[in-house]
Amino acid sequence: MTNQRPFDTLNESIGNGVIIRLKDGQEVHGTLKAFDVHMNIVLENAEEVTNESTKKFGTLIVRGDNIIFVSPGNSSE
Amino acid sequence: MTNQRPFDTLNESIGNGVIIRLKDGQEVHGTLKAFDVHMNIVLENAEEVTNESTKKFGTLIVRGDNIIFVSPGNSSE
Amino acid sequence: MTNQRPFDTLNESIGNGVIIRLKDGQEVHGTLKAFDVHMNIVLENAEEVTNESTKKFGTLIVRGDNIIFVSPGNSSE
Amino acid sequence: MTNQRPFDTLNESIGNGVIIRLKDGQEVHGTLKAFDVHMNIVLENAEEVTNESTKKFGTLIVRGDNIIFVSPGNSSE
Amino acid sequence: MTNQRPFDTLNESIGNGVIIRLKDGQEVHGTLKAFDVHMNIVLENAEEVTNESTKKFGTLIVRGDNIIFVSPGNSSE
Amino acid sequence: MTNQRPFDTLNESIGNGVIIRLKDGQEVHGTLKAFDVHMNIVLENAEEVTNESTKKFGTLIVRGDNIIFVSPGNSSE
Amino acid sequence: MTNQRPFDTLNESIGNGVIIRLKDGQEVHGTLKAFDVHMNIVLENAEEVTNESTKKFGTLIVRGDNIIFVSPGNSSE
Repeated sequence: MTNQRPFDTLNESIGNGVIIRLKDGQEVHGTLKAFDVHMNIVLENAEEVTNESTKKFGTLIVRGDNIIFVSPGNSSE
Repeated sequence: MTNQRPFDTLNESIGNGVIIRLKDGQEVHGTLKAFDVHMNIVLENAEEVTNESTKKFGTLIVRGDNIIFVSPGNSSE
Repeated sequence: MTNQRPFDTLNESIGNGVIIRLKDGQEVHGTLKAFDVHMNIVLENAEEVTNESTKKFGTLIVRGDNIIFVSPGNSSE
Repeated sequence: MTNQRPFDTLNESIGNGVIIRLKDGQEVHGTLKAFDVHMNIVLENAEEVTNESTKKFGTLIVRGDNIIFVSPGNSSE
Repeated sequence: MTNQRPFDTLNESIGNGVIIRLKDGQEVHGTLKAFDVHMNIVLENAEEVTNESTKKFGTLIVRGDNIIFVSPGNSSE
Repeated sequence: MTNQRPFDTLNESIGNGVIIRLKDGQEVHGTLKAFDVHMNIVLENAEEVTNESTKKFGTLIVRGDNIIFVSPGNSSE
Repeated sequence: MTNQRPFDTLNESIGNGVIIRLKDGQEVHGTLKAFDVHMNIVLENAEEVTNESTKKFGTLIVRGDNIIFVSPGNSSE
């Protein structure tokens, strides 16, 4: 067992596509550009995905305390 | 990969138009004038945009803990 | 670009009329008398403004963690 | 402009009647006896006032994080 | 005016009956046995009182962040 | 009056059955195995008890900030 | 009685399957890969399980402040 921590996993995902589930139930998708110790996250080519629509943003700075989880990969239902 | 952090992205956006999504579901738009380590943000030429209306404010000091995300650019639906 | 911070903007507004939007959706209006690092704010000639009514208070000490934003000026719809 | 802070205003109100608006929408009224840096407040001759009723308490220790605002004076509608 | 603080009032109530109003709207009644700086409280002969029923507990450790207020005495409606 | 604190009461309950009331209104029952300064709690032979059902878990690590109260004994209605 | 703490129990579960109950009422299941002092948790082979569906994620970084409890084992209803 290594001493890897959650922020190491986040660090390995920089430059890759991630899915962020927010506490208000919505998701933002994008390329992980940067993060800090509060889990504040910068996404590029970001999209806010709701049940009804997708809204594109160039760059998005997501405040860490809104995040339920970050998935550094694809999902399949 | 640089060591850029979310607050660097915010810093680069000073003087530009930003969109702030708030936890109550509304948005404020305006020119980013200043911020601090709590993500408290000062906007100029600020507008509060809801589904029904737009309300103009000269200056707005937004408390950081209300913010879901900040988008330092334009969005298209 | 100066190094001005959100609390500098608040400081410049002392003695002026401000609008405070609260997390419960209501607003308090009044003359900004004092504040501290938690954004606790003292208003004089304060009024609590709801959709239905206005209630006058001589002085009001507003706890900072209830605040969505402070507008140090007038608004027009 | 003096360097007065919100807790100074609270301190000047010790011994006087205050109105405390709580986050659950109710109010407690009473004589301000003591407070601390968390805005925990002790009231004497306290009353909890709701739309429907008034309930008297000898002494009340109100936890600061429930408070929206404190008004150290009377209000008129 | 003494320098008494809210926790002094709590300390004087040790061994006496207290009423604790919780953020979920319910009350717990009991004999105050102990507390700490987070306002975590130990009650003995505790009862949880709701509109519909009373539930008895031998001892209850109440987490401070659930508390709206503590009344170290009796109330009358 | 001793200097006992809430965590002392919790410490004396290690190895005994406890009831934990959670902020979402549900209860978990089990044998108290361990806790820390955040009131994070480990239960063994844990059961989640709702109005409709009981769900058994071997071990449960409950995050302290969800807890309303812990009762280190039995209750009777 | 040992001095074991909740994070020791979590540490012993690394490499095993765990169930995480979230504050929004949903569960995520997966293999516990890593955690930190905030109870941020990395799961592999993660699944988000709701009443209606199961959604698979390769890896999931769950923010600790969303967690009600972690069960490092199986449950039976």
